[in-house]
Amino acid sequence: MGYRICIIGLGLMGASLAGALKRWRGASIAGMDADAGARESAKSLGIIDEAYSEARHAINGADLVIFCVYAHHIPLLIEKNAGFFRPGSLLTDICGVKSGLYAKIEGLLPESSDYVGIHPMAGKERAGFKNADPAIYKNSGFIICPLPASKPENIALMRDMASYIGAARVAVCPPDEHDSVIAYTSDLMHIASAALCVDYHPGMTSAFTAGAFRDCTRVADIDAEAWTELLMDNREFIKDRLDRYISNLSAIRGALEEKDGRKLFGILSHAGKNKREMLKR
Amino acid sequence: MGYRICIIGLGLMGASLAGALKRWRGASIAGMDADAGARESAKSLGIIDEAYSEARHAINGADLVIFCVYAHHIPLLIEKNAGFFRPGSLLTDICGVKSGLYAKIEGLLPESSDYVGIHPMAGKERAGFKNADPAIYKNSGFIICPLPASKPENIALMRDMASYIGAARVAVCPPDEHDSVIAYTSDLMHIASAALCVDYHPGMTSAFTAGAFRDCTRVADIDAEAWTELLMDNREFIKDRLDRYISNLSAIRGALEEKDGRKLFGILSHAGKNKREMLKR
Repeated sequence: MGYRICIIGLGLMGASLAGALKRWRGASIAGMDADAGARESAKSLGIIDEAYSEARHAINGADLVIFCVYAHHIPLLIEKNAGFFRPGSLLTDICGVKSGLYAKIEGLLPESSDYVGIHPMAGKERAGFKNADPAIYKNSGFIICPLPASKPENIALMRDMASYIGAARVAVCPPDEHDSVIAYTSDLMHIASAALCVDYHPGMTSAFTAGAFRDCTRVADIDAEAWTELLMDNREFIKDRLDRYISNLSAIRGALEEKDGRKLFGILSHAGKNKREMLKR
Repeated sequence: MGYRICIIGLGLMGASLAGALKRWRGASIAGMDADAGARESAKSLGIIDEAYSEARHAINGADLVIFCVYAHHIPLLIEKNAGFFRPGSLLTDICGVKSGLYAKIEGLLPESSDYVGIHPMAGKERAGFKNADPAIYKNSGFIICPLPASKPENIALMRDMASYIGAARVAVCPPDEHDSVIAYTSDLMHIASAALCVDYHPGMTSAFTAGAFRDCTRVADIDAEAWTELLMDNREFIKDRLDRYISNLSAIRGALEEKDGRKLFGILSHAGKNKREMLKR
């Protein structure tokens, strides 16, 4: 019997991943989703080989179980289905916040299963199975978050998976380091973009907009439910980044108030230099 | 003798405009720049028909004079060259802030010349002649800012010019309305993006970044000199927008601090709704 993958949750990320993993290690893919439409479409489109409405049936016999659901469901799913994980299986998840989740998971893991978290840095403004696209992982970033007990060969397996789905830049780091960096590179960006749209100028029309408006507000039409959970789960790191951001904006405001062009020029030049440095990292 | 256009300043915007205006109304185009390299390249590339190092020589005989220089140079240029503007000529500029500039200009205009400001909503992160590209105006926004005395036929002429260079969305509005809206659609976006890069997370690498990071920080590598002037000139409107922005970010921070998921969801949902509404305007 060949390699078996189970994907729990066939939303945007899960269904896209199922499509991107097709034929990796010659695996068969079992998909589970509570939504009959998503699971039947996934099966009939050939994105998955088997469709299940119950997690335990999908998990049964799987070498690799990938949780592509809201983080708060995962500990419960592991606990409820502890007896169904195949000995030697690897469990993973694609959630955007790791420390709190893994603190809960560590005590629940079946002894014979290993866990290595992943975070594919890909997505779309629009969620759900109907927006799935295996190409979202092409040329993307990809973070692997092992637990202290994770086996090296399973970390290597996640690296191989990242490469197979087309990720171009891979990092391996502990969950808390992941959360701290993501608070800046992803969470703060989404907050900054959303806040730009909380109250807009009533006189604006598209004649007044150019690339800066388009790009800075692109992710503001956010999946509010998913992002409320993500931001709440990572709130300690985010509060720190948000405080710095507000303080930097206030410094710009101060330079305008004081008509201090030299100070403003200094801040803008420094930001430009940092932006160029970040592109090299 | 055919229609004659004079472009003062062959930087990114002026040289791009010269290229985009080629053959409009069968005009010949005279270009002025203090930099010999820019002016000679523009001539040899056929972007302009005549090259001058002195504004008065370029202005001489022109039906349309377009100032594509820093705003603070324009009143002086008009004053110094008042005797060289052709009777019946139209003057314009492409500056990003209008009210303060036009308050200065109105008293200096030769009686026989008209003035209608324009603001093509196009640009690039990198300034200068070497980055010029007539295509930057394609599908762009374009704002026409008449003075109270501007002649309707000259406003119509600027509309025709906008259409010729490929602008897709045109607005006509008074200078103070322009500055108020631009403080939001352009200035605030650039400030938000720059401030995101003032201090970045030292652990970040490209593996941790995706589209949100790329887009929200795209314009942070800003032309610091040009933007210092732009932001200072529009500081009163900007301070108001910046205060709102900081207040909205603080509300998000408050929801995180208070662990108030319902409040955070409300803010994110509202931002998404606004973003979708703005796309229809």
